This record gives sequence, C-alpha cells and structure tokens, in this order.
Amino acid sequence: MNTSKINPARIEADYLIETAFDPMEAAQIMAGEQSSGTFLAVPGETPELKARSAARVEALEVFETGMEPTLPGSGLPETGDETRTRARVTLSWPIDNLGVSLPNLIATIAGNLFELKPFSGLRLVDVRLPNAFADAYPGPKFGIAGTRRLSGVEGRPLIGTIIKPSVGLSAQETGALAVELCAGGIDFIKDDELQADGPACPFEDRVRAVMDAVNQQADKTGKKAMVAFNLTGEIDEMRRRHDFVLAQGGTCVMASLTAVGMSGMIALGRHSELPIHAHRCGWGALTRDPMLGWSYPAWSKLWRLAGADHMHVNGLDNKFTEADDSVIASARSLTEPLFDKQPMRAVPVFSSGQTIRQAAGTLKAVGSPDLIVTAGGGVVAHPDGVASGVRAMCDAWDAAMQGIDLAEYAKDHPALSSALTIY
Amino acid sequence: MNTSKINPARIEADYLIETAFDPMEAAQIMAGEQSSGTFLAVPGETPELKARSAARVEALEVFETGMEPTLPGSGLPETGDETRTRARVTLSWPIDNLGVSLPNLIATIAGNLFELKPFSGLRLVDVRLPNAFADAYPGPKFGIAGTRRLSGVEGRPLIGTIIKPSVGLSAQETGALAVELCAGGIDFIKDDELQADGPACPFEDRVRAVMDAVNQQADKTGKKAMVAFNLTGEIDEMRRRHDFVLAQGGTCVMASLTAVGMSGMIALGRHSELPIHAHRCGWGALTRDPMLGWSYPAWSKLWRLAGADHMHVNGLDNKFTEADDSVIASARSLTEPLFDKQPMRAVPVFSSGQTIRQAAGTLKAVGSPDLIVTAGGGVVAHPDGVASGVRAMCDAWDAAMQGIDLAEYAKDHPALSSALTIY
Repeated sequence: MNTSKINPARIEADYLIETAFDPMEAAQIMAGEQSSGTFLAVPGETPELKARSAARVEALEVFETGMEPTLPGSGLPETGDETRTRARVTLSWPIDNLGVSLPNLIATIAGNLFELKPFSGLRLVDVRLPNAFADAYPGPKFGIAGTRRLSGVEGRPLIGTIIKPSVGLSAQETGALAVELCAGGIDFIKDDELQADGPACPFEDRVRAVMDAVNQQADKTGKKAMVAFNLTGEIDEMRRRHDFVLAQGGTCVMASLTAVGMSGMIALGRHSELPIHAHRCGWGALTRDPMLGWSYPAWSKLWRLAGADHMHVNGLDNKFTEADDSVIASARSLTEPLFDKQPMRAVPVFSSGQTIRQAAGTLKAVGSPDLIVTAGGGVVAHPDGVASGVRAMCDAWDAAMQGIDLAEYAKDHPALSSALTIY
Repeated sequence: MNTSKINPARIEADYLIETAFDPMEAAQIMAGEQSSGTFLAVPGETPELKARSAARVEALEVFETGMEPTLPGSGLPETGDETRTRARVTLSWPIDNLGVSLPNLIATIAGNLFELKPFSGLRLVDVRLPNAFADAYPGPKFGIAGTRRLSGVEGRPLIGTIIKPSVGLSAQETGALAVELCAGGIDFIKDDELQADGPACPFEDRVRAVMDAVNQQADKTGKKAMVAFNLTGEIDEMRRRHDFVLAQGGTCVMASLTAVGMSGMIALGRHSELPIHAHRCGWGALTRDPMLGWSYPAWSKLWRLAGADHMHVNGLDNKFTEADDSVIASARSLTEPLFDKQPMRAVPVFSSGQTIRQAAGTLKAVGSPDLIVTAGGGVVAHPDGVASGVRAMCDAWDAAMQGIDLAEYAKDHPALSSALTIY
C-alpha cells in the first residue's frame, strides 16, 4: 500500500524499531498499547470497538538482524530467541480516537510506546496528518515570503548573527552592539536562547534599546534588520512580550520549543502577528540516540503546524555532534509540503560555526537560498569589522549561486578576500 | 565543597557525562556553552562579565574509564586519546542570568549541551533551585493531604483503576463503567492518556456521565471516588475543562506533561483549584538511554514546582522496560523536600501491571502508604467482580502495613484469597 499519501481519516506514523520479537507481533503490541488494547484483555474490548478504535499496522519493512540490544530493559519472546531485528513500521489511527489536537497527537504517536517491553530501540521517524489539522492550526503565518517582506532581503539568504556573549550584557550594552551590527548592514539578529528576561537584562529594556538602534538605522538607510527577540516564558508573558515587540516596531520573536512546550507554542502561534523564530535547544536529548526518540522531520512537523516560521537545523560542518547528512535531511524536510493545500513550509535556520565556507555546500543541500544563516564569529570576527563580515557572507552566497569558486570570486571582492585569510 | 545545600543565589545541576576529553576541561566547555562562553572568544567577554555571568564547575567526580562511546558523533581532544571517562559534574549559574523562570531554566540546564562535541554521553541527574523559585511557582496545591481530604481515604493508598479500553468507549459507556467501579467502592479512577476530548467521547459529555455516577454513589454512601479527567489540550481548553470538572463536583484533573509542555503546565498549575494528576507518557524518549536525557528526580522537580500533585512513577514488577530500582528512586524522590520551607511533595502514582502482589514491596520501597495505586486488571479482573478487586487490594495493603504474609492474611480475608488464585 502507498503510505506516503495522506489518508484523510487516519493519522499515520512511521517508526524505526529494534526487537527480539517477531517484528509484526511487536508492531501489533505498539498498535494495541497506543489504542484500544491493554496488557490484559478487558470485557469492553469488543470487535465493534476494535473496528472503530484500534490502531492498525499499515506497513512493515525489515532492515537487518543480529545486532546487540541498543537500549537496556527489553524483554524476549516466549521462544527465548535473543536475535534482534530492526524494522520500519507504519501505524495508523482513526482521527476520531483523539480529534484534531496537537497535544493529544503527541500522547498518541509518542506516548508510552518508548518504554514498551519488546523494544530495545524505538524511534518516531515520520508522521502524516489528515487535512483537518491544516484547518485547525495556524501554521507558519510568514514563512520565507513574509520574512523577506519584513526584512527586505531578496534573492539570497538572510545573513544573521547572534547576540554574544550569550548572557551577561545589560540591555544598554546589547543596544550598543545592535548599533554596530545594524551599521554593518546585518539582515538578522537573534537573542541567545539563554537570554530572555533575566533581571540583569530585562526583556522590555533590551527590546527598547535594540529597536532604537534598528529603527534609527532604518530611518537613515531604509534597511530594517529583523531581530528575533527571545520571549520564552509563561503564556501570558509571551503574549505580552510579543505585543511589546510589535509596538516597538520589531519584526520577529523567538521561543525555545522544548522550554515552552506544545500548548504554550500553540498559544503563541495563534496570538502572533510576527514571524516566530523557533529555537531547538534541548532537542539533543530527544534525538541523539539513533534508536530512541524522534527524528527531526517528524518533530518539526508538529511545531510548523503550531506556528513556527523559522526552525533551527544546526549547520554544515557544525561544532556540535550532528553529521552533515542529518542537517541536510532536517533542512530539506522543512520545505516539503505538510499538506497538499497548505504546505506550511518553515524557513531553515543554519547556525553553529557558520562562515563563508559553508555557503556552496548549504546551497547545494537545500537547493535554494530561502534560508537564514546565523554566524557569530563568522560575521563579527571579520578582520575589517562587521560590515565586511556581512559583505563577505553575501559575496560567498553570490559566488555559490553563480557557481563560482570562492577564491576566484574573491579576486574582485575584497571583503571575501580578507575573510578567506581567517576562516 | 558541599553541593547538596541550596545556594540562595545560584542554580545547581548535576550531570553524568562521558567524554574522551579531560573531564574538567569538558565540564568547563559545558559551563561556557551554557553561560557567557562561545565557540570563538568575542570582544564583549570581559573578566567583569564573566565574573557576574559565567557558570561554574562546582564539583567533579570521576567514576570509570575505558568504555566504548555510548552515543555517536562525539569528538576527541587534540591529543587524539580515545579513552572515555564517565564522571559526575556539578555546574552552577547565577540566578540573575535567567531570573526565576521555569521555561528558561530548561533552556539553561537542559539546552544545547546534549549536543556538545566532547560528549559521547550527557544526562541531567539532579537540580537544586534557590528559594526564589518556591515563591514564584504554585507547587502542588493539594499533595497527599488534599488528595486524602477530597477522596476520604485515610491510612492506606488510594486504590485506583484506569478506564479501559483506553479509547473507543463513548461517553455513555464510560459513565456505565464508572457506575460499576463506584459501586465496587473504588477510590480513584483515571482516564487513559489516549482519551481527552475525542469526537467519539467528548470531554464534557464524559465528565457529565461519569460525575453522575460518582455523585449518585456519593449521595448514597458518602464515598466520592476521585476521578482524574484527562484535560490535555491547549491552554484555554484546559482552563475551560478544569472549570467544567469543578462545576460538576469533580475532584481531580489529569494532564500529560510531555504533550502539554512546561508553559502550558504552569498555566494549568496557576489556574487549578483541583489536584493535578500528571501523566508521564512520552517520558521514555527522554530517559531510556542511561547516558542521555534526564533522570526522573531532576525532571519531576520542575513539574512539581509547576503544580503537579500526583506524578506517575511506573510500578514494581511493571510491564514496561524500567527496572524496580529506578521506580523506587523515582517514587522516593517525589517525597524529598524541594525547598526547606516548602517541600512541595508530590504523590507517587504506581501503575502498570499492579496487583495485590506488589503491596508489600511498594510499601517497603516508599516507606509510607501515602500514594496512589492504579490497577487495571489487578482490580477489575478479580473473579468476584470490582468490589472484591478493590477489597483484595485494601487487604493486601493492610497485610503489608501489619507485616503479615499475604497467604496468611488471606485465610480470613476471602477477597484476597480469591485474588491469590489468579494474580
């Protein structure tokens, strides 16, 4: 059967499993646990009830056998056979089990099943949702088109940077740094995820100081940098902070997804009149074991639906543990349509150790310059200052889009030429 | 230094790490990444700024060396030495870096660090918070005392069960099941985490049907079963559902923590006038790799602070992958004081394959009957019906509290005697 097509009446999820059980039996146990089944058969579990409520195993593909168990605690089948098998399993649920609810979707597709006894590995790798979800949730209200409109950047990535040091600057010091970055022609600035509303750098003071810099530069040159202000907090705080940013002429807000959680993110998504820059700090705990947790394509779909416009995907040749192929898969997944009629594409945000060096590879991986690059040292550590740092990044992307080698392009692009000496 | 005492001005967190780097160097990298440090030194990172904002390594204890790397992607030190070391590290942060904010606490203590290059394993094992957090968050408003007051159960655990099949029953069918459970003298009933407000079993219809049964039984006998209605959803839905349960005379609400997330849970905690039964479905993804993610004691502290009255801890001899020693450590941690002046103890909820057989072991492990046991088949599959199932569970706990062997106690307790034949 074709599992890539969205079934209007059922939710589908794909898992990577590792089990010593017969994989089909193991898949049936998952389906039972996550719908109308129980450990012990109960009187109410009638054939009629099963027919309307049971999750189904839609597909099963065995990959390999004979590996050591990845996670501790799993059980063996009655045969005692310890041979582990890895397989990809697709389950489906009737939408009427839970209704069109993102929080309850999480409980259904990513609930108790991670701890089920037959599994020495279980990872959610993808999810497909009926169109009813597209009607019920806001999705990205801005995406790349709205982000380009608000930032005035066309035909190339937004070149961004992060306020550094991450934490420790006062609101006034942050404002002074914004003056410098704006004067350098930066497209995009983001708060660090460690700085939201610390008493040493209160949110409103910081927004006021930074937006003074941004607005003055915009008045002078017509170019208004987009600043993702980190409003991570309680629901009412986030709504209030969003409104404050809007009132100050700001054009973006940022929230840390794992810190806020789904119900908080939905509330922000419904409320927001600005692009939401979604930070993924803490995501590593959910994904770093390749046989546990969530894949990024599955996880990010839920946040896109809730309203994330920009989603962090790490970066090529990054300073973290993630391999480039994973970064590329993440970035590409954000631009694949979530629903036929509403693609709900999010803008991939590349960060971590980004410089002029990754432009060509990133363009090749994503296939488009519709993205945000945030470089810390890659912009501000340029020997000739921030303006040259921004210029060099733009040059590197121009070169990539024209298919010209960096060294060649640098011959008549001095900012890029200087950048090549240090990055 | 003493790391167990709460420093009024700093947040402390303990981690289990695995690294090929010198462990102290690795710990310093964690501290830098999660405070004012960056991959590349930046001009603003002055000694004064570091003094007020840098996270500190407070303690380091090396456990063992020479294991294979647990997680992929980690890097090696410049020496190229591949020898891995496991250690326990304590970091601390000035409270002024983030302020008294649970969402931002998550970004600080459990943010980007899981993906840091030097680590082939990194797990948050405990956290200690300044008293300012106790003043800022509600904590459990009911705990064991309020739960006993509302349920009328004293001197023994609340004996509970779960609506099964998990999903598939209509509101009316759920009400009919509640009639049977209440007639059997059950103390506690919970919705399954898969059933919140599905169109086949709408929340308000279900609450009305179940509370009719509960209120009628209470009018008849004076005993009012506590029902944890699963209100998992968006913030406004949860508040509205809470108010509906309260208006119907209900005495408990339930939310799935990983589905709702922290900002949603705080909103519910601040709003609630009923005990909050906190379900942990999805928790396995965060904990099942012993070298990644979160330990339960660290994780549950944050939810207790946000307002969780009852916290699931799995059960002894459970049907999932968790070992008994982990279950016991989880349950005990919930009753340890969170703050000197406000202990914010939560009630441990034991579930999964629970029967008369686990009473003595559970009592021994927790040291008190201040807990909830939810048994599915362990109550409703009793050969003489639900009433005998509840009676047998109470008998088993009486026997445990009196230090009498189950078989001995069963001699003049017929419900327990029958139960012994099937469990």
